[in-house]
Amino acid sequence: MTTAVSADWVLPVDGPPLEEGYVAWEDGRIVEVSRGRAERHFPGAAIVPGLVNAHSHLEYAVYGGFGDGAPFSSWLALHIERKARLDLPAMEAIARLGAAECLASGITTVGDASYAGAAATACAELGLRGLVYLEVFGADAEQIATRYEANRDRLGGSLPERVRLGISPHSLYTASLELWRAAAELGVPIATHLAESQAEVDWIRRREGPFSRLGVAVEPVSLAELDAHGLLTDRIAAAHCVKLDASELELLARRDVAVVHCPRSNAYLGCGIAPLAEMRAKGLRIGLGTDSPASAPSFDLFDEMRAAILAARAREERADALTAGDALALATLGSARVLGFDSEVGSLTPGKRADLAVVSVAGSPYDPVEEPAVAVVFGGSPAKVLETIVDGQTRYRQGETTWHEVRSTASAARRRMLA
Amino acid sequence: MTTAVSADWVLPVDGPPLEEGYVAWEDGRIVEVSRGRAERHFPGAAIVPGLVNAHSHLEYAVYGGFGDGAPFSSWLALHIERKARLDLPAMEAIARLGAAECLASGITTVGDASYAGAAATACAELGLRGLVYLEVFGADAEQIATRYEANRDRLGGSLPERVRLGISPHSLYTASLELWRAAAELGVPIATHLAESQAEVDWIRRREGPFSRLGVAVEPVSLAELDAHGLLTDRIAAAHCVKLDASELELLARRDVAVVHCPRSNAYLGCGIAPLAEMRAKGLRIGLGTDSPASAPSFDLFDEMRAAILAARAREERADALTAGDALALATLGSARVLGFDSEVGSLTPGKRADLAVVSVAGSPYDPVEEPAVAVVFGGSPAKVLETIVDGQTRYRQGETTWHEVRSTASAARRRMLA
Repeated sequence: MTTAVSADWVLPVDGPPLEEGYVAWEDGRIVEVSRGRAERHFPGAAIVPGLVNAHSHLEYAVYGGFGDGAPFSSWLALHIERKARLDLPAMEAIARLGAAECLASGITTVGDASYAGAAATACAELGLRGLVYLEVFGADAEQIATRYEANRDRLGGSLPERVRLGISPHSLYTASLELWRAAAELGVPIATHLAESQAEVDWIRRREGPFSRLGVAVEPVSLAELDAHGLLTDRIAAAHCVKLDASELELLARRDVAVVHCPRSNAYLGCGIAPLAEMRAKGLRIGLGTDSPASAPSFDLFDEMRAAILAARAREERADALTAGDALALATLGSARVLGFDSEVGSLTPGKRADLAVVSVAGSPYDPVEEPAVAVVFGGSPAKVLETIVDGQTRYRQGETTWHEVRSTASAARRRMLA
Repeated sequence: MTTAVSADWVLPVDGPPLEEGYVAWEDGRIVEVSRGRAERHFPGAAIVPGLVNAHSHLEYAVYGGFGDGAPFSSWLALHIERKARLDLPAMEAIARLGAAECLASGITTVGDASYAGAAATACAELGLRGLVYLEVFGADAEQIATRYEANRDRLGGSLPERVRLGISPHSLYTASLELWRAAAELGVPIATHLAESQAEVDWIRRREGPFSRLGVAVEPVSLAELDAHGLLTDRIAAAHCVKLDASELELLARRDVAVVHCPRSNAYLGCGIAPLAEMRAKGLRIGLGTDSPASAPSFDLFDEMRAAILAARAREERADALTAGDALALATLGSARVLGFDSEVGSLTPGKRADLAVVSVAGSPYDPVEEPAVAVVFGGSPAKVLETIVDGQTRYRQGETTWHEVRSTASAARRRMLA
């Protein structure tokens, strides 16, 4: 059976926008993208590929404002202290809210760094596509296989095909070389946090600066060391990358390490603005990530796209440093490439999964629409998302999908953390 | 007769937040701000002073995306070309949409630079408080009095007390010294655009750079010259101020010139990030402005507050460079001081006008609320504004105030501009 939706605009991302277009699918896979109208038509709206959030922590969906404005070490200490008040069911409750917020923001896929594995459960239950990287810390290499297998076993039977597991050595300063090696040996996708702050760089390079007060027991690893051990590969998605120099960027490009740009988190934590122009010039695979409310205000990838534009143009002092179309490409196909999912999602292309978002562009400063990417990126917000579809199934419909239970359970978990 | 509203939180801005508080007023003036509950209670919400948008162009409300990403000179040429397609009724239609968007975003006062004077009509009709600065360009000093009086006469009879007129020599490079002098002689508040881009600075200092291609017929004036002629005074509100050096900031401080920070517009146009930390250190009066959809995505001062935080923290590489509370103070009392309205609005203080916004904080990553300013600033958006009250009168209520006619008329005007 063929299903189709149409709207004033269809933005396939891998090709030019179609005015008055439709997207049709069968068995959850796109069969046609063309001009014309379907029975389900959305006037005043644009259909875009489901947004791909390449770096999130669904499990931190209610960590909003914790330690805002504090120095990194006190900010981190507060998070650790409060997180310790939660059990797995509470973490699952929070991750469900995270998955709901993503779907309500037009996001259909996440690359999620998961402390407890709860994000995988949440994705499975709410219908989000996910590559859930299990986070590991420390120097105990044996935990990798144990933790990965335990989670696989725990989740294995219940995970749909659209939720896959990866592994995430947290960073070069919180995971030892042995841990990194064991992670690589699993043969699954890897995520990490890389060069997020100057403090991190000072600690790894010279064992000095504010991180000396963090009490991290692990011997930090430099990027060069990681590479010398053959561990810097195209299976890694590195979030942040604010403080990399030209030779380090060159090294990432040579090893085809992917980068997740998180401009809001980087700014809010006082880390700075990542060198996006240089990364793009080197041809790196680059995606966009919201990180989580622990460091950025929301799982809103529209706001993240605008922050990417704002940060790039302010840094380069050029209005063309990043266009609306560039930002939309980063948040869809770019992110899909980072996760290694680009043969399946990231653009509205026959053969790919039917993951899409319907975004209202009516009544905005961009109506009537002149350039649809501008209207979607500058005018878009969760309030403008009319419907989010994953694998051809509607997972969010504005005004109908409320997730009352999900919201109140997550709110209760936050209350427990504040206690 | 006393009217009152209450909510989970009241943020007076000139004092600490009140949990479970109310605001009461008589004849449009606040009589009490206190803990307790009113008959009209908003659960899951915060009451804040009506936001004050210290630099807007309501008349550009539908200019969204025009020339986005283009160099400044082509961007400007496109705006001039398209604006020439509009008559005064069309400009009024657009300004009404601008006023509506402001009210729907919790804004109760604007400091508006008005090309056609249409913004004053819009404020009067829709219930927004406004200081509407009539924009003047060129070297013909006589136009000042003529234009000001013509507008005063045209609008005079119809303007309520809450809408006042000022004058705005557009900038130091588009208005001559004679024009500046004639503007000062009017004795009304003055607004201008100052040091917005490096191109502007290069043109004024050395008559070189991209502005030499703009074909501006006016002899530019430097800040020092303006001061030497006694024209740099505390009646001026200077928008942008991205490219001022330390001595120029010092001069502004000495003359008590007020600054309107517009971080989104500055970034989107590729101008850069204004030195907010230095301005604050010098004790300048500083407010926040959305500018207009001609250069920033929306009249959303929540988004502008977050952009101010993002820009300040990224620039300073410190998470405490600007807190949520700091940003809220800039967007309320700070902006009110810039406009010279701080004895009347900008905080919830007995004796001031009853201008306030009710903002939902329910169901956000900040619920239950730990720090209300964080919940309002990071979680706020037009979609979260439940009610906007000016002079004690409800001017916007979510789900009820739709402005259908305003929207469709403005949209028609945009259609005409695109033709």
